[in-house]
Amino acid sequence: MTDRILVINPNSTQAVTDNISAALDGLRFAGGPRIDCATLAEGPPGVESQRDADGVIGPLCKLIEREPAAAYVIACFSDPGLYSAREITASPVFGIAQSGFATALTVGERFGVISILSKSVPRHLRYVASLGLTARLAGDKAIEMGVVELQEEDKVMQRMTEVGKQLKRDDGADVLVLGCAGMARYRADLQDRLGVPVIDPTQAAAGQALTALSIARSRTAPAHAAE
Amino acid sequence: MTDRILVINPNSTQAVTDNISAALDGLRFAGGPRIDCATLAEGPPGVESQRDADGVIGPLCKLIEREPAAAYVIACFSDPGLYSAREITASPVFGIAQSGFATALTVGERFGVISILSKSVPRHLRYVASLGLTARLAGDKAIEMGVVELQEEDKVMQRMTEVGKQLKRDDGADVLVLGCAGMARYRADLQDRLGVPVIDPTQAAAGQALTALSIARSRTAPAHAAE
Amino acid sequence: MTDRILVINPNSTQAVTDNISAALDGLRFAGGPRIDCATLAEGPPGVESQRDADGVIGPLCKLIEREPAAAYVIACFSDPGLYSAREITASPVFGIAQSGFATALTVGERFGVISILSKSVPRHLRYVASLGLTARLAGDKAIEMGVVELQEEDKVMQRMTEVGKQLKRDDGADVLVLGCAGMARYRADLQDRLGVPVIDPTQAAAGQALTALSIARSRTAPAHAAE
Amino acid sequence: MTDRILVINPNSTQAVTDNISAALDGLRFAGGPRIDCATLAEGPPGVESQRDADGVIGPLCKLIEREPAAAYVIACFSDPGLYSAREITASPVFGIAQSGFATALTVGERFGVISILSKSVPRHLRYVASLGLTARLAGDKAIEMGVVELQEEDKVMQRMTEVGKQLKRDDGADVLVLGCAGMARYRADLQDRLGVPVIDPTQAAAGQALTALSIARSRTAPAHAAE
Amino acid sequence: MTDRILVINPNSTQAVTDNISAALDGLRFAGGPRIDCATLAEGPPGVESQRDADGVIGPLCKLIEREPAAAYVIACFSDPGLYSAREITASPVFGIAQSGFATALTVGERFGVISILSKSVPRHLRYVASLGLTARLAGDKAIEMGVVELQEEDKVMQRMTEVGKQLKRDDGADVLVLGCAGMARYRADLQDRLGVPVIDPTQAAAGQALTALSIARSRTAPAHAAE
Amino acid sequence: MTDRILVINPNSTQAVTDNISAALDGLRFAGGPRIDCATLAEGPPGVESQRDADGVIGPLCKLIEREPAAAYVIACFSDPGLYSAREITASPVFGIAQSGFATALTVGERFGVISILSKSVPRHLRYVASLGLTARLAGDKAIEMGVVELQEEDKVMQRMTEVGKQLKRDDGADVLVLGCAGMARYRADLQDRLGVPVIDPTQAAAGQALTALSIARSRTAPAHAAE
Repeated sequence: MTDRILVINPNSTQAVTDNISAALDGLRFAGGPRIDCATLAEGPPGVESQRDADGVIGPLCKLIEREPAAAYVIACFSDPGLYSAREITASPVFGIAQSGFATALTVGERFGVISILSKSVPRHLRYVASLGLTARLAGDKAIEMGVVELQEEDKVMQRMTEVGKQLKRDDGADVLVLGCAGMARYRADLQDRLGVPVIDPTQAAAGQALTALSIARSRTAPAHAAE
Repeated sequence: MTDRILVINPNSTQAVTDNISAALDGLRFAGGPRIDCATLAEGPPGVESQRDADGVIGPLCKLIEREPAAAYVIACFSDPGLYSAREITASPVFGIAQSGFATALTVGERFGVISILSKSVPRHLRYVASLGLTARLAGDKAIEMGVVELQEEDKVMQRMTEVGKQLKRDDGADVLVLGCAGMARYRADLQDRLGVPVIDPTQAAAGQALTALSIARSRTAPAHAAE
Repeated sequence: MTDRILVINPNSTQAVTDNISAALDGLRFAGGPRIDCATLAEGPPGVESQRDADGVIGPLCKLIEREPAAAYVIACFSDPGLYSAREITASPVFGIAQSGFATALTVGERFGVISILSKSVPRHLRYVASLGLTARLAGDKAIEMGVVELQEEDKVMQRMTEVGKQLKRDDGADVLVLGCAGMARYRADLQDRLGVPVIDPTQAAAGQALTALSIARSRTAPAHAAE
Repeated sequence: MTDRILVINPNSTQAVTDNISAALDGLRFAGGPRIDCATLAEGPPGVESQRDADGVIGPLCKLIEREPAAAYVIACFSDPGLYSAREITASPVFGIAQSGFATALTVGERFGVISILSKSVPRHLRYVASLGLTARLAGDKAIEMGVVELQEEDKVMQRMTEVGKQLKRDDGADVLVLGCAGMARYRADLQDRLGVPVIDPTQAAAGQALTALSIARSRTAPAHAAE
Repeated sequence: MTDRILVINPNSTQAVTDNISAALDGLRFAGGPRIDCATLAEGPPGVESQRDADGVIGPLCKLIEREPAAAYVIACFSDPGLYSAREITASPVFGIAQSGFATALTVGERFGVISILSKSVPRHLRYVASLGLTARLAGDKAIEMGVVELQEEDKVMQRMTEVGKQLKRDDGADVLVLGCAGMARYRADLQDRLGVPVIDPTQAAAGQALTALSIARSRTAPAHAAE
Repeated sequence: MTDRILVINPNSTQAVTDNISAALDGLRFAGGPRIDCATLAEGPPGVESQRDADGVIGPLCKLIEREPAAAYVIACFSDPGLYSAREITASPVFGIAQSGFATALTVGERFGVISILSKSVPRHLRYVASLGLTARLAGDKAIEMGVVELQEEDKVMQRMTEVGKQLKRDDGADVLVLGCAGMARYRADLQDRLGVPVIDPTQAAAGQALTALSIARSRTAPAHAAE
C-alpha cells in the first residue's frame, strides 16, 4: 500500500493512540492518503526519560521495516529513532517535535513548549539547539504530570492553562507547541482559553506527510499546465 | 466563503499564476478547502528588486481586504507584506519563503535556495537571519534569469540543475528550496535530476494552509474521541 | 547640491521634524555639510504598525528621487524603505535604527531599546535578528504611548524613566537607544536621570552621514600627507 | 581642555601618526572639537603580536591619565587597553576596530577585514566573536606585510587590491574595513579600485567621537526647540 | 570497586579496545584510579550508522548497570547512550566526543574533526550544534574508511594526513580531533606530521575522568590547607 | 625540568597560592608530573578590574620566560596574558576560565559562574562570547566580595550558597564554575550544599595539563600495542 501515512505511537498506551487518531480526522480526505495509527506494543506506557526514548528505537525501526507506508510519523515529542528510521526506509519520516517546531515558525515569532515533566526539558533544549532553532524558542515549561496522568482532564487542562499563560506572559511566546503526543485532545480548548495558536505536533506532522504525498501524487500535472 | 485558501501571486504575470495553480492540484480534495489563485494586477511582471517587493504591499493588502478567505498564501519568495497582512486579517497568512524554509527543516539537514537573480540573495539572507535560521542555510545561489525568462524551459532547467549541483556539492545542501514562485513547474523534474528533495514553497505554504484549516474543521472530534 | 544631508521624517507630524532638526544643531558646522530635515506629507501622523511602515516606502522613495542629496537619513525607527532607497540612489542612505544600534555597540556592552508601543517590539526584534545583533540586545520595552502622544512631556519623561530603569536593572542594559525619532528632545534629560548613555538614533545617523561626507571631502589629503 | 579628541597611536612610528592625522583633516571643523594625534613613545614600531598589543596597555593608560581630553581614540586595530581605559576616564573611549565594525554595519551586509599579518587574524576573530558580530563578518585576510612595511606604497596597494578582491569574490564582502591604522592613506584609492566602500577605522572612530561631543555640546538646544 | 574508571568500547572489535587501552597507559598512575577497558560484546564490529549508534544503547546501559565504577567513559565518537547512562548511574559518565571537543577548546581556536565516513558527518554536525559549539568547529571531513579498515596502517595514515591538511588549510583548523575511538594509535604520528595538536578523544575523556576522581579523592585536603 | 606543571597565581596574595596548591594535591601522583605553584610578586593583591588583569600580563610573561615548565596554568579567572603566553613558549598554557568552562561542558547542560564582584561580570561575558560558549552559560552572578575578603569563611560560604541557589533556580544552571582561583577551598563544601557539581577552575586546568603531559609521555606505547 503505497498511499498511506503510518503514524506510530511509540508508547504502549492505546488510549494515546486513539486520541491521536481522532485528532487527525480532519486530515482524512476522500481520495487522499489513508492515515493509520499504530501502537508500539514493545514501548513503555509513556516515553518520559531519555532511556525510554532510546529504548523504543529498536522495536520502532522493526515496525517500520515490516509495515510499508508512503510516509511515517513518529508520534513522540522526543522524535526517538527519527534519524535511524530515515536510514532504513526511502519513504519520508516525520518526527512530531520537528514538525511542530516547523509549523510554529510559520505562525508566530517565538514558540513556547508545554512539556509533561521537567526532566524532559533539558532533552528538548538540546534537540532545539541541534536543529538551530534556539533563537525562536521562548521557553519550555512542564505541567509535571506523566503520560498516563494525561487522562485526568480537569487537572491537565488547569495545569496546561497555567503553564501556557506563563509562557505567554513571562517568556513572550506567541504560539504554543504541545510537548507530548498524548496532549492532542486538549489543543482546541487550550487555544480558545489562551488566545494564541496552539499546535498539536502530531497534526502538524501528519499535515506535512499529507502535503508531501499529495504533491508527489500531482507531479505530472505541473508539467502539462506549463505548456 | 470561510473555507477557501486564497493564493496571491503578487506579480502581474498570469502564466506564473497558472503554473502555481496547476502545482497545487494535488492539494485539492473533495470535501477539502477550495484553493483559489489570484494575480495582483497592480504588481510588476516579476518581483525582483527590493523596491518591487515593497511596492506590491499596498495593493496586496487591499486585495486581502476585499477578498475574504479562511487562509491566505503570499506566493512570492520575498514574502512581501506578510507582517502587514497579518495585521489586517484574522485568517492565517502564509509567506511562501517562510513555509518553504519550515518544510525544508523537516526533510533535511541544511537547505539550499535556488534564486532567480544575485541581487535577490542579500535580501534572502537578511530574511533568513531575521527568522533565526541561518545555521540551517547551506547557501543561496542564483540562476541569473528574471521572472519573465522563467518560460525558457530548457535554459531554466539547465541553469537550475547546475546551481542545484553546486549547492549540493560545494555548500552541503541536502534539500533545495525553489527561490521563486514562478519555478513551480520545474520542481519534480529537478528533484529527479538532482536526487535530493526539492521544495516548491507555494506547495509547502498551501499544504500548511490546508493543514491549518482541516485541523480547525475537526476541532470537536478529539474531545469526543477522548471519552 | 552635492554636500547636503537630507533627513526625512516619514510621518506627517511637523512637530516631530522640528524636534529632530533641533537635535541635530550640534552637527551643523560652518564649512560642514548642510543638514536639512523634510517631512513626508504622505505619511501617517506616526509610524506605529507594520502597515504604516510599509505604506510610507513608496512616497519616501519618490521624495528621495526628486530631492538630490549627498546622503540621506530615514528618521523612523523601523528603517522603512532603507533597502529600496539604496537601490535608487548612489548616495549613502542611513536608517536610524541601524545607526542607533551601531553607535550603541561602541558605547556599551548590551543595549536596551525604549519603544513607543508593544506592538512595535516583535518588528524590532526581527530587525535586530536580521542584522545579526541579537546577542547585544538586552531588551526592548515600550512606554505604551503613540507618536502623537510624545508631546505630553511629563508623562513621557516619567514613562521613559520607568522603562529605562527596568532595562538597566532587569535586562542588564548599559546603554539605551530611543526607539522613535520623536523622542529626540528627551535624550539629554533621560541620560542625566538614568546615569547611562542614551542614544538618539537620528543624531547617530546624522553623525554617520556627516562623517561619511567629511571623509569623502578630504579624500585627496591623505595621499599628499603620505608622501 | 574639554573639547578635544585625542587620537593615540600606540605604536612608536611617527609616520603612522602623521598619516592618521592627515586622514582626519576632513573632520576638523571651525567651531568643532580639536583633533590631536599622539604617538606612544613606549610602544613598539608596530603592534603585530598579542604580546605587542598587551604590552602597550600600561603606557597607553598612563598617557590617558596625564593627557585630559573630551574623547579618546585608540588607533590600533587590536583595540589594546580599550576596557582598561574606560575604567580610568569618564570621557568616552573609542577603539578603532569596534568603530570600524560599527560603521561597516551601516554601510553593507557583510564586511571583510584586510589585515597586515596572518597571525593577527585569530586575534581579530576572537574579538569579533566577543562583540557578537561574527554573523556579519565575511572574512579576514592578510596582506602579509608588517606595520613598518606599509610605507612601500606600490606593493601595499597591489596586495590590498588582491586581498580585497578575494574578500569580495570568495567571501561575499560588500564593504571592507582596513585592519591597521597604518593603512589610512590607502583607503580612498583602494575604494576606487575595488568599487565597494572601504572604511578607515580611525576615521570611523574619530567621526563617532566628533558626533558624541557635538551632541553633548548641543544638549540644551533640543529642550528649547521642543517647546 | 569505587576507584576505577571503566572505558567501554561499544563496538565488538577487541582490537579497537586493545588500542584504546594502550593509548591510556600514560594515565595509569601508581596510587591513581584503575583504568579498565571493556568491549561491548553485543555491539556491531563498528558503530558507523545512526542505527548502529542507537542500537548499542540498550546493551551499553545494561553493562553499566552490572559493572560498578567510579566513572565511565563511552568510547565511541557518537556518544551513544550518554544521556541515558547519566540517568542510571550516580557516577560521572563521559562521552568521548564531548570530551574531545572540550579539550580542543583549551588548545586552539577552531577544531577540525577527522571522521571515518561521510555518512557520520551530519550526525556529528547535529551533535556539535546541540552542544552549542558550532562556532568553534572548523570542519568535519571523512577518510572514507570503515572501523574495521582502520587496521590498514599505511592507507589510514595517508588518508588522515590528507584530510588533516585540508582541515588546516581550507577550513582554518588549528587543532584536530580524531572522530573515532579506533584511531587512537595514529594520534602521535599524525600530530608530528601535521604540526598541530591532535586529540584522541578517549584520552581526553579518560583524563577528565581521572581529574574528576582525583579531585574528589583530595576533597578534605583543601579545607585543612585553608586554615 | 621538562616534566613539571607550573601554576601561576598572578596576584601577590600568598594565601591564595597556598589554597590553590592544596586543592591540587589530589593530582600529584608518584611518577606523575610535579605540580608547582608560584605567586606573581608584581601582581596586585587581587585581580579585580580590567586594568588589574591587563597589568599583570607583562610580569607574568617574564615569569614564564625565566621559569621553564612542561605546561603552565594561569590561575586567574580573567585568563590574563593567555594568548601572549602562548606566543612565548612552546609548552601548552592553560587559562583557568577556559579550562573551567570546558570541564563544565562535559558535566552538565548549562553552567553558572559565581564571581567575586559585579564589575567582573561584563568582562566574563565578553570572554565567554569570544569563546563561542554563550549558549551554554546559564548566568554569572557576584558575591560582591573582593579577593582579599575571601578569607572570611562564613560570610563567603553564605554568599556563595545564596548566589549558587539563584543560578540553579532562576537561571537553570546544573553545574557551577567558581569565578576566582581564590575560591578553591570552598568547592567541596559548596557542592555538598547545593547538590550540583561545582568546578574549581584551577583543578580543571591542572587536570588538563596533567592529561596533556601524561599522554605525551606514553606516546610510543600505542604504536607497539597496535601491532
